[in-house]
Amino acid sequence: MSYRYDEAVDGPLVTHDRTAVVAQLRLRIPDLTLLYEVEDLRPFECDGLAAYRTTPLLVALPETIDQVEKLLRYAHEARIPVVARGAGTGLSGGALPLEKGILLVMARFNSILEIDPEASIARVQPGVRNLAISQAAAKFGLYYAPDPSSQIACSIGGNVAENAGGVHCLKYGLTVHNILKLEILTMEGESVTLGSDALDSPGFDLLALFTGSEGMLGIVVEVTVKLLTKPQSARVLLASFDDVEQAGSAVAEIIAAGVIPAGLEMMDNLAIRAAEDFIHAGYPVDAAAILLCEVDGAQSDVLEDCTKVEALLRTAGATDVRLARDEAERQRFWAGRKNAFPAVGRISPDYYCMDGTIPRRELPGVLAGIERLSAEYGLRVANVFHAGDGNLHPLILFDANAGETERAEALGGAILELCVKVGGSITGEHGVGREKINQMCAQFNADELSLFHALKAAFDPKGLLNPGKNIPTLHRCAEFGSMHVHHGALPFPELERF
Amino acid sequence: MSYRYDEAVDGPLVTHDRTAVVAQLRLRIPDLTLLYEVEDLRPFECDGLAAYRTTPLLVALPETIDQVEKLLRYAHEARIPVVARGAGTGLSGGALPLEKGILLVMARFNSILEIDPEASIARVQPGVRNLAISQAAAKFGLYYAPDPSSQIACSIGGNVAENAGGVHCLKYGLTVHNILKLEILTMEGESVTLGSDALDSPGFDLLALFTGSEGMLGIVVEVTVKLLTKPQSARVLLASFDDVEQAGSAVAEIIAAGVIPAGLEMMDNLAIRAAEDFIHAGYPVDAAAILLCEVDGAQSDVLEDCTKVEALLRTAGATDVRLARDEAERQRFWAGRKNAFPAVGRISPDYYCMDGTIPRRELPGVLAGIERLSAEYGLRVANVFHAGDGNLHPLILFDANAGETERAEALGGAILELCVKVGGSITGEHGVGREKINQMCAQFNADELSLFHALKAAFDPKGLLNPGKNIPTLHRCAEFGSMHVHHGALPFPELERF
Repeated sequence: MSYRYDEAVDGPLVTHDRTAVVAQLRLRIPDLTLLYEVEDLRPFECDGLAAYRTTPLLVALPETIDQVEKLLRYAHEARIPVVARGAGTGLSGGALPLEKGILLVMARFNSILEIDPEASIARVQPGVRNLAISQAAAKFGLYYAPDPSSQIACSIGGNVAENAGGVHCLKYGLTVHNILKLEILTMEGESVTLGSDALDSPGFDLLALFTGSEGMLGIVVEVTVKLLTKPQSARVLLASFDDVEQAGSAVAEIIAAGVIPAGLEMMDNLAIRAAEDFIHAGYPVDAAAILLCEVDGAQSDVLEDCTKVEALLRTAGATDVRLARDEAERQRFWAGRKNAFPAVGRISPDYYCMDGTIPRRELPGVLAGIERLSAEYGLRVANVFHAGDGNLHPLILFDANAGETERAEALGGAILELCVKVGGSITGEHGVGREKINQMCAQFNADELSLFHALKAAFDPKGLLNPGKNIPTLHRCAEFGSMHVHHGALPFPELERF
Repeated sequence: MSYRYDEAVDGPLVTHDRTAVVAQLRLRIPDLTLLYEVEDLRPFECDGLAAYRTTPLLVALPETIDQVEKLLRYAHEARIPVVARGAGTGLSGGALPLEKGILLVMARFNSILEIDPEASIARVQPGVRNLAISQAAAKFGLYYAPDPSSQIACSIGGNVAENAGGVHCLKYGLTVHNILKLEILTMEGESVTLGSDALDSPGFDLLALFTGSEGMLGIVVEVTVKLLTKPQSARVLLASFDDVEQAGSAVAEIIAAGVIPAGLEMMDNLAIRAAEDFIHAGYPVDAAAILLCEVDGAQSDVLEDCTKVEALLRTAGATDVRLARDEAERQRFWAGRKNAFPAVGRISPDYYCMDGTIPRRELPGVLAGIERLSAEYGLRVANVFHAGDGNLHPLILFDANAGETERAEALGGAILELCVKVGGSITGEHGVGREKINQMCAQFNADELSLFHALKAAFDPKGLLNPGKNIPTLHRCAEFGSMHVHHGALPFPELERF
């Protein structure tokens, strides 16, 4: 993927000498682990979006809140940008380093500080892996609900930064619905508590504002998550369809019938075949599309809901509906879905993963639209959807060596524009990061972007936290050509500096 | 209730001549309805918190977005504060007028613009009553879930401003969880869309930030709400307890067992007797406490859950558990609860309604603490709780004519401090408004309040929207004596002007 060097972020106005910064940090925080040799920096050049790569000025690996605070105070004073990183599994380049910025790797904050089974909460450090929380809570019959496909590796701090979802967020919500409280440090090193241990918190909802803010507002140093009681039973139905749009309609009908599945996922033929080849999940390789519908709850309720959903699926045109016989088959059905991205990676030299959202009712129309666009651009698209949420992951297959990169990017842009056109948005759960920053110019107008920048400035007046990600400058949008600069002036010229 | 005249809000620096302002508005918006004679203004002197009263400069009753936009542009230019008001049912004085401010009454925005049963959404104007949405959606088998006790009268715009809850928010969430999109105007009259028709929206979560912001960030002109499918069945259990703390423990046990009741409410003996005298709900007047536990869903699930909950309640020490025989009895059980406030109003010359939240596990201890404080201050307290959410409504009974007002306020303050001490907060669903603005100084530190003001300034740089509510100035907190002024300076001196 081409990476346009961004004047607005890595421009020439600020220069930082690596040796001088390292010396200063050594002096102020002697026990802080720093990496600054070029070969040590290489593993940190990118996150999960490997097409974008930058060598950071240096990498800091703090172990205490005190170290983070001192580092931020120094960086603030010296006007050095700071990019926070969890496990580096993000898919939109949100943790892409800056050439003149410190990469703050929070991986060593990996302790589960407290599990309170009575209150059904866990207090954890930001570097704790998503799955590790559920594993630690399992002995109390509890778990942490959001389950991104990367849950074995991704950190809860990164989940907060991206407001991560997962295959069960239709019923259990996104990260923001499953956390109670955050302890953060501002860029000035000040400690702030967002949210509370109780249901609601007075004042503005800073917890929600912060969640999904992609490292632009502060550094998370502690997360209090809600834990849920493990459902007594969970069963999954696999329905085959001869027609992709019929599968799309079935989704709307299940929801309209008042069933809230724990997960409701869709894959089209190309994705089915790729996953089946890779995982041997037992998918019907001839189906035009499959739906995976999981129902959970008390044993008897689950069986009743399965019967109801099966009837709905058949009425909606499913040619076959199979209930996973046992837990092993259920796990296999999900393994196919959760490994769909790497599976597609096996059948194409390159692929480009999209992450649009649409109102659920638009699903059949958008599916038809993607098929049309795929033909028009002459590139295959494998579709993997969180169908119940209207969150689409079209995977565009291309060959960079055959010069297809630009065409893939253009097709991706066209698909996202289609999403915005029907009332959806350019990202569901992967975030904007660096990747989709230009599309933000299409999603929002100048007034709205100015508001975003003003909020950013409320937390970080110098614009030092993860600049150049998530929220484009008006300058960038003007260059990108899809936005008129408001009143002819940039509201936060200092954001243009790095 | 005593009302301290607030220099920070109604101070002498800005003077506005009523006649001149009316003349200007007539000139600019000839078709806008204005009230400015003192007798016409009287009904608007207060909201649901009648202890606080102020006559506004004038009342505007716009009917179109264009009128609102022009009014805001004029007020912005002339630096006249604007207080928005829905139905005026708020309980914390959030819509209390300012002597030198325009009261913007949104009651005429009362059209349901669209109901889309397929997408399960409704697009409504902000003055539409909460219950009217469910009534209009009923023909599609749908309803709007949040149900504050005032739902027959309160407006959806006010619900957004206060992030209103209700007896069913344990299962179905607060207003913020049940809306998709807001169209707002900023104080400068600019139109901004917050949220989208899809699941999630990129950029910062402005929808959540705005919800519950108590009219300080902008004026809502349109709301898109989510509609839910009406549950097939709903049943309610009434459990009696000899001991208030046992009832508190039962709540935690029901939740821990993995049942999520649609509603889980608690009342103590004083509240039970008051409600029974008023509504004849069939409550056991000798019980120390009752729990009302509603279960909804598919018919068979509901019966099974009722059996499970009944067993849990008996194990937790319930002396009697009754399942409402039919829909009529269910409605009666709820009517007693929903009318508990006016019922208590009948047994005391005055009462003061508190609205604290606590972590659910603290319920038994806080109940004991309130009893202790009640004895200490020599004032009766009737307790009505959204027990499942840890949202407390202690009602302090007093007689203003007997000079008990100050003692009631002090007791109220002590109860809220107890809530904050155990990790809770000073308001669950009634908001901060004018009433609890001093307690905000105890809840937040100077850095946190500065952050709130910076966010406010991002939307409303001149601080003209509902100043003096929700977020106290640092100056006020310094005067109130519970906070140290940050760096010796006020960060937004212009907020002190009105």
